[in-house]
Amino acid sequence: MANSKYAYVRNFELLDPLLPGCFLVCRIDGHSFHRFSEEHAFTKPNDERALQLMDHAAKDLMSEFKDIVLAFGESDEFSFLLRKSTNLYNRRNAKILSTLTSYFTSCYVFHWPRYFPDTPLRYPPSFDGRIVLYPDEHAIRDYFAWRQADTHINNLYNTVFWALVQQGGQTTTEAHAALRGTVSAQKHEMLFQRFKMNYNDLPARFRKGSVVVREKVSEPEDAHDTDDLPEPIKPKTSEIARIPSKASQRDKLKTTIEVMHCDIIGDEFWDARPHLLAR
Amino acid sequence: MANSKYAYVRNFELLDPLLPGCFLVCRIDGHSFHRFSEEHAFTKPNDERALQLMDHAAKDLMSEFKDIVLAFGESDEFSFLLRKSTNLYNRRNAKILSTLTSYFTSCYVFHWPRYFPDTPLRYPPSFDGRIVLYPDEHAIRDYFAWRQADTHINNLYNTVFWALVQQGGQTTTEAHAALRGTVSAQKHEMLFQRFKMNYNDLPARFRKGSVVVREKVSEPEDAHDTDDLPEPIKPKTSEIARIPSKASQRDKLKTTIEVMHCDIIGDEFWDARPHLLAR
Amino acid sequence: MANSKYAYVRNFELLDPLLPGCFLVCRIDGHSFHRFSEEHAFTKPNDERALQLMDHAAKDLMSEFKDIVLAFGESDEFSFLLRKSTNLYNRRNAKILSTLTSYFTSCYVFHWPRYFPDTPLRYPPSFDGRIVLYPDEHAIRDYFAWRQADTHINNLYNTVFWALVQQGGQTTTEAHAALRGTVSAQKHEMLFQRFKMNYNDLPARFRKGSVVVREKVSEPEDAHDTDDLPEPIKPKTSEIARIPSKASQRDKLKTTIEVMHCDIIGDEFWDARPHLLAR
Amino acid sequence: MANSKYAYVRNFELLDPLLPGCFLVCRIDGHSFHRFSEEHAFTKPNDERALQLMDHAAKDLMSEFKDIVLAFGESDEFSFLLRKSTNLYNRRNAKILSTLTSYFTSCYVFHWPRYFPDTPLRYPPSFDGRIVLYPDEHAIRDYFAWRQADTHINNLYNTVFWALVQQGGQTTTEAHAALRGTVSAQKHEMLFQRFKMNYNDLPARFRKGSVVVREKVSEPEDAHDTDDLPEPIKPKTSEIARIPSKASQRDKLKTTIEVMHCDIIGDEFWDARPHLLAR
Repeated sequence: MANSKYAYVRNFELLDPLLPGCFLVCRIDGHSFHRFSEEHAFTKPNDERALQLMDHAAKDLMSEFKDIVLAFGESDEFSFLLRKSTNLYNRRNAKILSTLTSYFTSCYVFHWPRYFPDTPLRYPPSFDGRIVLYPDEHAIRDYFAWRQADTHINNLYNTVFWALVQQGGQTTTEAHAALRGTVSAQKHEMLFQRFKMNYNDLPARFRKGSVVVREKVSEPEDAHDTDDLPEPIKPKTSEIARIPSKASQRDKLKTTIEVMHCDIIGDEFWDARPHLLAR
Repeated sequence: MANSKYAYVRNFELLDPLLPGCFLVCRIDGHSFHRFSEEHAFTKPNDERALQLMDHAAKDLMSEFKDIVLAFGESDEFSFLLRKSTNLYNRRNAKILSTLTSYFTSCYVFHWPRYFPDTPLRYPPSFDGRIVLYPDEHAIRDYFAWRQADTHINNLYNTVFWALVQQGGQTTTEAHAALRGTVSAQKHEMLFQRFKMNYNDLPARFRKGSVVVREKVSEPEDAHDTDDLPEPIKPKTSEIARIPSKASQRDKLKTTIEVMHCDIIGDEFWDARPHLLAR
Repeated sequence: MANSKYAYVRNFELLDPLLPGCFLVCRIDGHSFHRFSEEHAFTKPNDERALQLMDHAAKDLMSEFKDIVLAFGESDEFSFLLRKSTNLYNRRNAKILSTLTSYFTSCYVFHWPRYFPDTPLRYPPSFDGRIVLYPDEHAIRDYFAWRQADTHINNLYNTVFWALVQQGGQTTTEAHAALRGTVSAQKHEMLFQRFKMNYNDLPARFRKGSVVVREKVSEPEDAHDTDDLPEPIKPKTSEIARIPSKASQRDKLKTTIEVMHCDIIGDEFWDARPHLLAR
Repeated sequence: MANSKYAYVRNFELLDPLLPGCFLVCRIDGHSFHRFSEEHAFTKPNDERALQLMDHAAKDLMSEFKDIVLAFGESDEFSFLLRKSTNLYNRRNAKILSTLTSYFTSCYVFHWPRYFPDTPLRYPPSFDGRIVLYPDEHAIRDYFAWRQADTHINNLYNTVFWALVQQGGQTTTEAHAALRGTVSAQKHEMLFQRFKMNYNDLPARFRKGSVVVREKVSEPEDAHDTDDLPEPIKPKTSEIARIPSKASQRDKLKTTIEVMHCDIIGDEFWDARPHLLAR
């Protein structure tokens, strides 16, 4: 081959296998999404369309990569759990990381017009990613608890902050100052006293983030398959950690990827899905 | 903070700094582009629109990341050279890799309609990437020579192969069989004898791939800035390793990112651009 | 400082932290011990002095590094288990590896004259080492089972081999040929039929290898401390997976490092020492 | 095999190849040598016997590993340069690191009685090590300049410090206080004014450290081979960066490993030995 004399350069490509027997978490984060959300006029504090678009990309990723058993998203980030025995791409770090991040990005841009039909993309958004190894179930539980606690903290803050600005007429500087040093209970109180908002009445999506899992659902024999419809038309969400219903005798069992907005800090969610951490 | 008890999970995020003083090459490859090119009816053996779209994404990446000093693309892959002293993202491997791959992917999807106005994307394409360290100029020269030699070998093969199929009426199996064991000179001869094609008359883009560099060009004082027009309208390409013209006294010097289709195996290209390997 | 202009070279020293939450196994192997054992006239198939010297070095390593909770040795190798929560040297790979290997080597050379009083070292022996991460107890159990099964296989082979050579008068080539393809039961039979040896009567040290653990032992109030005497004088070994005796009311509890030659493939050893895999 | 069911644990042993095309520096440091030097009554500020023992171990390492082309030592540390094209142990990091550190340690303990005939080792000394990659000659030059500048700084400080203590009758606290904030010229002046010592008259070994290289030396036909004698009897040292003498026609050329105490910050040493950085 004409290029055989150069082929030695491949020797510089070192292998980067990830330790076997560990769970893999791939966390994908929006790059400069503060600016991106402003340029595309995202609703504050939460833009439901943008969150649904993130969920859609996450579902696509899980459809494509069967070894992803769970995803959790909030704001412009999503974490994907790959089962600990996964042998995806022989557990090569860069291959897994770049492929997942690329496909997520592609789905985000691809589906954009569906969620923002009147807001053309002004420039290509991007994400960064990282893969973190966790050796046991305990650490995985804590990882996802960490992300969902973060969702709560951020959303509570942002909710009060934007209420102060949008309804209270404060500048952003004033709003930040008003919130400085306040604890959770005080923020709840500010919302209720000044804006008659009960935080717990906010949509679970905002308070809990998005939990994406494969669920076995029963399907009536003659049901039309509506799976390809976009979420805005056919939302499959619930706030509680729903335990999949037993299928009736006549129904077929079908695996679908569902988005929920339930608690994943407590045991209920995990106890109902032991396979998530099994292997 | 409510999530401080979980924050220890960040300790599992290990740093992954790349060795200082080495050139970085980030190579991005299309994922399952064989299928993708068929689903989107790419012209064989080369689809100029698809190649221009790749070039466009590469130019965008270089616009965004100033430490990329050179890119080379062929088919569904692109290699990006980051100068050896780059401190992009503190040289963190996963951060650089995931960000570059994500942004390239995003640009590809974003610009798709410009190059394929009549062919909507049927599904989101994706890429994988890897970063390879090269400690010296010699290895970098050989790396890019390796890719361009590969371009030549693949393109010559594919050109004869598709001539046999499209013009010669052979099946793909027959065409592969006809080419088995042939050397370069025989392929040239087959093209010329049977299809009256002189391989060297093919567009340089197909034979040489795409070389993307920053060039200082002179700009007449009152010139309209046409930089934002898409390449199909304002191609800036040349086959020779053009040495940037000296600007006349009245002209301003301006840095643009240019796509060329020149030889990068020999010395001429590199001798004219010593800054590429300088630091 | 006069050398501050050069201090940048430290930037090339990249950190190499080991993943938290995993057990560490450091395995140390003799370098060219085939030659070393011949040059120093080791008894074949097992040289008890050499094995005791290995054990002594292992005990010293465990005395010095409290995070080593278990060691297993056979022939010229020793494996050390560090508890999964160890923060020794901030879990830096090279620091741990080089320090443990160096200290083991040093102890081996230092104590040599005690075990080989009539055989001066002819040249400095050396060892190599590696650190392997294991994410869970199951893998650790299997790791040590792997080493002990290896001990058995090697020792059975070597025992028959050297019987054929030393007592049977065969050449080493003939002895290897005689053993080729034989299974375990056949080797036992050869030993018994030809050499009247019952394999299971061989010393446990040879058949089981050396297991080194910290044990709490009771110590009579007025006991002389004999701990510093060399093993040849005061062997503390047993074949069974001894469960540490309950101390009588009058005794003090004392932690000592003990060498045993017991089974570690089954559950008994581990069930009696749950702390080994606890954290 | 009886242990085949456990053999999967080897999958956790990940490869750790070092990037090709880079120089390797292995730096070995004494572990707790402050205490070790006190326990063994090292002469302060420099113990020539201890330094010669370090040199001896370094020479042994270079005899054993031909890919080490240069070593530099001071106090209780030694740095070894492996040529950039070395393929020692397939450039596996842990294998190289552990083997070199182990062998160095072994040589140190092995040769101890030769240099400290009246001071038995009280306990086994140990070393740690690390391997650092350097991509080019410039960085290697600066690495060794960094170490030698460090030698100078430390030795100057220690020389004045111990003069103040041993001859000046100060406590160590007073001596440290007296030196605080002084620059190099002031330390020279203190030595000269108070102790009539001209720093530059001190042995080059103390001021420059030890430089170990392979040299081709001419050897008269009938010369007795004295190479195996210990250094104390046959020192081969010089302060200048000696250029190997041309062999006369009658002489044979022989490669020996020599210890010198010359400057390696300037160009002379390196210009005379271009092979050190060649490949």
